[in-house]
Formats: sequence, structure tokens, C-alpha cells
Amino acid sequence: MMTTDSEQSTSPESGSVSIRADELAGLVEGRLVGNPELILTELASIEDGSPGSLTFIRSKNFANLWSDSSCSAALVTQGVDVPGHDPETRALIFVPDADIAVIKILEAIKPKPSAPGVGIHPSATVHPDAQIHPEASIGPGCVVCQGAAIASGVVLVANAYIGQDAQIGQDTILHPGVVVGDRCVVGDRGLIFANCVIGADGFGFLTATKDRPVTKVPQIGTVEIGDDVEIGACSTIDRAKFGVTRVGHRTKVDNQVHIAHNCIVGNDVLLCGRTTLGGSSTIGDRTMIGGAVVLNDQATVGEDVKIAGGAIVLDEIPRGETVLGVPAMPARTALANAAASRNLAKFCRRVEKTLKKLDPDYNNSS
Amino acid sequence: MMTTDSEQSTSPESGSVSIRADELAGLVEGRLVGNPELILTELASIEDGSPGSLTFIRSKNFANLWSDSSCSAALVTQGVDVPGHDPETRALIFVPDADIAVIKILEAIKPKPSAPGVGIHPSATVHPDAQIHPEASIGPGCVVCQGAAIASGVVLVANAYIGQDAQIGQDTILHPGVVVGDRCVVGDRGLIFANCVIGADGFGFLTATKDRPVTKVPQIGTVEIGDDVEIGACSTIDRAKFGVTRVGHRTKVDNQVHIAHNCIVGNDVLLCGRTTLGGSSTIGDRTMIGGAVVLNDQATVGEDVKIAGGAIVLDEIPRGETVLGVPAMPARTALANAAASRNLAKFCRRVEKTLKKLDPDYNNSS
Amino acid sequence: MMTTDSEQSTSPESGSVSIRADELAGLVEGRLVGNPELILTELASIEDGSPGSLTFIRSKNFANLWSDSSCSAALVTQGVDVPGHDPETRALIFVPDADIAVIKILEAIKPKPSAPGVGIHPSATVHPDAQIHPEASIGPGCVVCQGAAIASGVVLVANAYIGQDAQIGQDTILHPGVVVGDRCVVGDRGLIFANCVIGADGFGFLTATKDRPVTKVPQIGTVEIGDDVEIGACSTIDRAKFGVTRVGHRTKVDNQVHIAHNCIVGNDVLLCGRTTLGGSSTIGDRTMIGGAVVLNDQATVGEDVKIAGGAIVLDEIPRGETVLGVPAMPARTALANAAASRNLAKFCRRVEKTLKKLDPDYNNSS
Repeated sequence: MMTTDSEQSTSPESGSVSIRADELAGLVEGRLVGNPELILTELASIEDGSPGSLTFIRSKNFANLWSDSSCSAALVTQGVDVPGHDPETRALIFVPDADIAVIKILEAIKPKPSAPGVGIHPSATVHPDAQIHPEASIGPGCVVCQGAAIASGVVLVANAYIGQDAQIGQDTILHPGVVVGDRCVVGDRGLIFANCVIGADGFGFLTATKDRPVTKVPQIGTVEIGDDVEIGACSTIDRAKFGVTRVGHRTKVDNQVHIAHNCIVGNDVLLCGRTTLGGSSTIGDRTMIGGAVVLNDQATVGEDVKIAGGAIVLDEIPRGETVLGVPAMPARTALANAAASRNLAKFCRRVEKTLKKLDPDYNNSS
Repeated sequence: MMTTDSEQSTSPESGSVSIRADELAGLVEGRLVGNPELILTELASIEDGSPGSLTFIRSKNFANLWSDSSCSAALVTQGVDVPGHDPETRALIFVPDADIAVIKILEAIKPKPSAPGVGIHPSATVHPDAQIHPEASIGPGCVVCQGAAIASGVVLVANAYIGQDAQIGQDTILHPGVVVGDRCVVGDRGLIFANCVIGADGFGFLTATKDRPVTKVPQIGTVEIGDDVEIGACSTIDRAKFGVTRVGHRTKVDNQVHIAHNCIVGNDVLLCGRTTLGGSSTIGDRTMIGGAVVLNDQATVGEDVKIAGGAIVLDEIPRGETVLGVPAMPARTALANAAASRNLAKFCRRVEKTLKKLDPDYNNSS
Repeated sequence: MMTTDSEQSTSPESGSVSIRADELAGLVEGRLVGNPELILTELASIEDGSPGSLTFIRSKNFANLWSDSSCSAALVTQGVDVPGHDPETRALIFVPDADIAVIKILEAIKPKPSAPGVGIHPSATVHPDAQIHPEASIGPGCVVCQGAAIASGVVLVANAYIGQDAQIGQDTILHPGVVVGDRCVVGDRGLIFANCVIGADGFGFLTATKDRPVTKVPQIGTVEIGDDVEIGACSTIDRAKFGVTRVGHRTKVDNQVHIAHNCIVGNDVLLCGRTTLGGSSTIGDRTMIGGAVVLNDQATVGEDVKIAGGAIVLDEIPRGETVLGVPAMPARTALANAAASRNLAKFCRRVEKTLKKLDPDYNNSS
């Protein structure tokens, strides 16, 4: 029998499951070519899988690995030709989009996450003037301050802190140790991972002069996070000096990302692990930024930009550009420069040797 | 009527406020040139503001934007000439230093942060042998261990942990989830943001040999943080192997900064977001370090140094130097090299083409 | 009398201690050459120590500093010759390995860390179906979910969260604020520092197309941490998409390290501060990686590799290699290129000047 959310047989260590090929085809509304009675017990990559594994084939490159793969079944994007399939012993399930079909399966088999029950846990500390929707779950050790508003379906898993007048939108989940500072706003259906900090003070100081030490500029602004946003563990999003630090709808932020005060991050943006946005930098809609990227203060990145991991953005990247490197440059130039860099010592030696031969006055120590 | 800390009308989302131009001039002891009855409702940059906005003009560059700005009023540093001002409809307030005046206003209007009341919250766990000053506030879920000393005016907001024999100085505020390890010391008037960890073990191991695996070196030292220090969210400052990891007075540390064991950071230092100090590195007084900088283990940086974001410091930066790049070099050399780097591929092609022409024996594949 | 764990006289600020030279020699089973009655009160480096300091001499370089050092005593690796020793006033203690002897002493004098008592603290929240060994310590504010298993000798110091069906092995210590997600497994004798997050979701999304927004791929895998592993404060180790993210036995991970979904980190690996491993990257046994290194998604690093701090690894590093740079290259090539880079602007000017002289058609603007 097929197993789903409510009746799963998932093993603790790997999210494995037991399902027949024909049931699987039904679940994803796909066309089965192969043995309907095969039992599939896990998801795996086409190279790593073994008998019982279900994999996916989204392109010709994957399809060419099928005949040598040990996987028992594959979800295949319609239109991809899969050579060497034996329908007696294995199964292919054709669907409009194999990636989407995998998501459907993962959704069906995913274990229900641990969460406190609806209501306020007796060990939580909730101010009498906070508004807690009766369908919200406030887990053990959570603190909700005066004037905060917690909407329906919200889950504060444990030890989370919601500051004064802060707002958490419907069905948003805050993992343990998340801190949302005073007056900050998180939208609906958000997913904020453990120990993330939203609304610490921006790093704003007047530098020292002869007459005064370094002087703090009070940071009185807030943070506003849109709907359907995901933010990774130990990421930090600082409040604005005044006004708002904003993260747009459907934007996804990985772990240990730092978004400084007054940044404006658009909708549908992806920010990979450990990326740092300097103060007042802006990022346009649908831009994708790799890991460990640094944006200078005030940098402006347009819409639909792609920035490769490790890049440093000094000032401006126009709409639609793909950039990489230190400093970030258009990919073609950056790759050519990187290739030249890799052989730089050799190039320099060769050139100097030739120049000394050609020009008796050439002096490489000048 | 003017609104201040105690009687503010701040809106939850942006720290806005309502104040008349002449009241504002009084608050900052400035000279008003313009309409005294203008109502100002928010702080904004000179470019982004709208009617009702107060902005600041600290230099000629800002002054030149005034005639086109929609802001109603500006704080102006005395001596800066502001062309195109219409005192009938707008207001300028001249002060000795516009930046300082802005800080005065922000201080006056800033919302009071959420904080637990004075005393020990019933959900906190305080060892009977800890010394808690009666004027300290120990918030919900906090843990204070044996022998720890919490001075007058200290606020542990929530879920903070103060280890055995640790000391927290007067009026220091620890945001939720801050951890101060055993025997570590934080000075007076500190501000430590959420989930910061002070006093985890230094990363000290004997590397593996044929005869033994990687072996931990016990880290028995401590951390000492001076007075008036600010430390950002999710930053980590490790205890010394033996002796002390030290952060000087008035030093400001941004989010996600890592200060390894046995570092000595001077007074009045600024460390921007995600900077990493390797073990036993030292930083002189008044040095400013940009974001995502890396200092090697044992690196020594002198006083009054400036290090640009993204630099990697291998060994030593002398007093007063301004450096950038990988590895960090004096700014002039680094900028010249960076400029050459950006055109490296083109330069190499051009040189090789010419050398082939000049020298029939030149071989760029050698 | 010698002081040890149970009867220490450690001062709060520096782990200092009081011990006679002959007692010390007994403790490390070493051969004393010098005054047996010297009182040693602290550990120090050979350059920084003062009378009363004990230091260590592991090589000729250290030995040559002995005559000018103010330290009273030193642990010396047998076979190292120490010139200028006066056995009347100072003491040398010869041992097979001075580093190991220092560890023995640190172990003997290290203060006992703060820890909750055995049993479940009344402010902890433990699901009735969790298995807590009677010899485990569950500190204040901790949360242990349904099906979780906490072995003998485990210490959850405070405010830690153990998800559903998660497992914590014998004698493992979790510092305050550590989060172990559902179904994740931590081995025996582990040491996990504060606010570390194990088992947040991997950063897995289908990028947006015309027909659909960015779409989350459910992350149903887990994390498995081996035995004798140390993980630093605010580090994050994400769960696998499906299958397992694995950290091998005896591997040591510094602060603020990010290990993405589906990484496989071998045994006896060292990962220094702020290093980031991209999704599905792998690291072989005994490899050592410096600080702030970035591994691209799917990068594969072999066994016994050394990677210098700040490197970016694009794809593959073979077994035994030592690499550095951006991108990471074998050390010899990288150092030669780095040296050439440092003088690049000068080199370019010199070459262009000569080429213009030699070739009237040479045009450096082309």
C-alpha cells in the first residue's frame, strides 16, 4: 500500500519508503513503461542507486546513464529518449517534468516535522498584550513581547523570541532559537531556520575624531520579510538605520547569510550560503547569488542577474548580466582573465626572457 | 507637542514620529531658517524623502541635492552653503555637526526596546551562588551559573546563558540566546546581539601522526571584553588556549565575525560583518576592518590601519597603512594591480601577438 | 600540593595554577634537570612568560629562546638540545613529546566546566516517548522531542533542542542553544558548541521558469555525525535532500563553518573557521582545510589534502595535494602566480614600454 504523510513507514535515517511502481505512477499521474509490481524503497541519484531505488531522468545526459544504472525505476521528463530500457525488469514513468514529479513524491513521503501542539506551551512567556491567534503554536521556552501579533497557523518551535510589536504572518514556521526583533515583520508561509536573527541593530557608527570616540547611530528602523520566504540557520538580517530593510516575496536565503541595514532584496531572489550584503545594497527580482559572495555597501544589482560563488561586487551590476570574480566582471571577461591568471608566472618568465633577448636595455628589476 | 522616549507616537513599522520644525531646532539647539510650523514625520535620505521628511546635509554634495529634494527640512552642518532654499515652504536647521544632530534626534525618538523587568524572571534558572545585583534584569529562560556576577543595570533579555564565574559589567545588555562561557568577562555598557557566543573553545589540536589521532589541546583560557563594546548577532569569540582572548574598550564588532583564540583586539577598533581573525592575531587601536576580511593566524595589524572588505592579511600590516586585496597590499599598489588584472587576458594576447612577430623563436606554449 | 581537576585552585581569569617543578615532572613522567622546588603558576609562551611561567620547547627554534626567556621552567621534547640552561635557578623537564606533556598538564588543571546535574531539569521539556538514559543530564530550557534517544553521560547544557527521533551518543556534550533536527544522529564523545545547528533543510530549489516560481524541493534526508567529533559555535550542517549528510569520526569543525546538504566529510578531517562546503561536496580522510575556504557544489577533495585559508575549490583536488589560491591550485604554481600578481602593474608597464620601443605598430589600447 502506498504510504503518505499520514501513514508513512519512513525509516528514521533516510526518509526511505516502500511503494509499487504502478502506485507511484498514479501518485505523479505519469505513464508507466515497465514492470508495475516493482517495489521501490528509496530515492537515489542515477549513479548511486541500487535495486529498489527510484531515480529521475531530466535530460539526455541522465538518460545515457540508465542502462548502466542499478536503479529499478526512474521518473522521466516526457520527450527524453531513454536507450537500453528493459520493461520486464525495470520501470520508467513518463511525466511532464521529472523534477516536479520528484517534488510531489518527496512531499508525499516526507516525515511530519516535530512541532509543538496548537496553543501556548506552559513554559512559554507571552505578554498579556500580545495577540496570539488561537490556531498558532507557541512552543516551549518561547517569549512573545507586548504588542506582538502571531497569526493563525504560525509555529514557534521552541526558545524563539518575538520582540515588541513584531508581526509573524500566517503559517510561518520559526525553528528553535530564532529571534525577531522589536517591530519587525515576517510575512505568510515563511520558513525560518534555527538561530536566525532578524532585526539586530545595523552596524552604524560615526568614526572617531579628535573630539569624540566612535559614536553609535541609533538604529530605529525595522525589517520586513515578504511572503513565502525561507531563511537559513544562523543568518542575520539587520534592522534599518531608519526606514526598512526589506526581503521580497518568495526569496530564499541560505545559512549564515548576512543582510545589513537598509538592504532592499527583491522578489524571487536566491542567496546561497554565507553571502554578505553590505549596508544599503539592493538586489533586483529573480537574481541568483552563489555562495560566499560579498556585496559592498551601496552596491546595486539589477534584476535577473547571476553572480557566481566567491565574487565581490564593488558597485553596480546591470540587469540580466552574469558575473564572477574579484571584483565581479562579466563572465566572459572574468573567465578569460582567470585563465590568464592561472599561467601568470609562466607567462611573465617567458615574456621577460624574450624581451631581454630582443632589447639589451630591458631590465626586469626596474 | 514634541514626542520623546517617554511619550512617543512611533508607528510600529518605521520609527516615524511627529514633530514641528521649531521644536526640532530646540531639541538640537540649532538655528532655524525657514517655516517653524512645518510638521516632520520621518527621517529620510535627501534623495528618497517626501513632504514631511527630515534629512541631513553634511557637505556640498548633499547641499546640491536640496533644491530637487522633496524633503521638508534638513539639518545642516554650519558652514555648508545650501543653494535654492525657499524659507517660506521648507526649513533648514543649522547645527555644528549634522551627523551628531541626527543622532540626538534618533536618541530622542527611538522606541524603548523590549526588555524584561528588573529582577529574576520566574522561568530563569539562577544558581544560588551567583551574584545578581538587585537592579539587574534576568529575563525568561536565562541561565546563570555558580559564581557568575551580574552587575547593576544589566539586562539579559531572554534565553541567555552565563557560565560559571563569568562576569557581566554594569548596564550591559545581552540579547536573546547570547552565551557567555565559564570565567569570561564582559565590561560595562556593552551591547551584545542575539545568538552571539563568547568563550567557546579555541580550535586547538595536535595534528595526527602515525602514532596518535588528532588530539585536542584543552582550552583553559578565557575571553575579556572591554567597556562600551558592541558585538553583532551570531558572532563568535573563542577563549584562549591559556591566557586571554581580548577585545578592547569601545571596539565595535559586526554580525557573524569570528575572533579566534588568543586574539588581542585593541581599543576603538571597527570590525565589519563576517570578518575572521585567525588564532593569536592582533589588531592595534583605532583600526578599521571592512567586511569578510580574513586575518591569518598570528597576523599583526598595527594602530590606525584601514583594511578594505574582502582582503586577506597574511602576516603584518604596519601602523597607519591602508591596505586591500588578496593578499592585502598598500592601497596604491593593490589598485594598480587590480586594474592590470581586469585587463589581463587582453594584455597577454596583445603581448604574445607582438612577441611572435618580433621573435620567430617565441613560443607561447613553452 | 599538586592541584588537579577535583581540587584545583584555578583563578577565574586565566586558568592559572600553583605546582612545584618536581610534582610537575611526576605528573608528566618526565626527567627533571633543575631546581625541584620552583613554584610554577601559569602556562605561557616562551617569549611572553615571566618568572613562575611554565613553557614548552618542541624544537631547536624554541630552545634558542630559552636563555633569554623569563620563564622558570620548560617541558622539552627529548633530543632537543637547550643551550644556556642554569639548573640552579630554572628547570627543564624532558619528556618524549612536549606537546603531549602540555596537554596532560592542561587536562590536569583545567577547570571543570559548568554543567547541569544528572537527570532532567524541571524547566526542560521532554516528550514522554523520548528515551533519556538515567545517567544523562538535560539542562534548563532544553527540549527533547518524541522518539529521541539520549545516551548515557550526555550533557545538554541549556536551551538545546533535540528533534523527533534524533539520537545523541554516549558522553556527548551539547552547549547552550544547539539544535539537532529531526532524525539526525550525533555519535559518542562529541563536543558541540553553542548555537550550532545540525539538520536545517538543505538549500534545494527548482529555479523559477515562466510557468512556476522558485519551488522548494523537500529535504527529507538526515545528518550523521561520527564519534569524537567537535563542532564549533554557530556552525551549520544541513540535512540531505535524501540520504545522508555525513561527518566522519574524529573530525574537528571550527566556528561558523557551513556544511551543505549531502556533503560527505571523511574521518580525521580538520575544517577551520568560516569554511563553506557547497552541496554534495566530499572530503577525504585526514584532509586539513584552512579558514574561510569555499568548496563549490559537488567539489571532491581527496585524502590527505591540505588547503590553505581563503582558497576556492572549483572541482577536484587529488589525494595528497597541497593547494591554495583562487581557484585552488598546487601550492608551487599558486605561489609563483601570487608573486607575479603582486608586481603585475609594474610588469605590465615595463613590458609595454619595451614593446612600444621595439615595435612601432604596438598599440596598448587595442
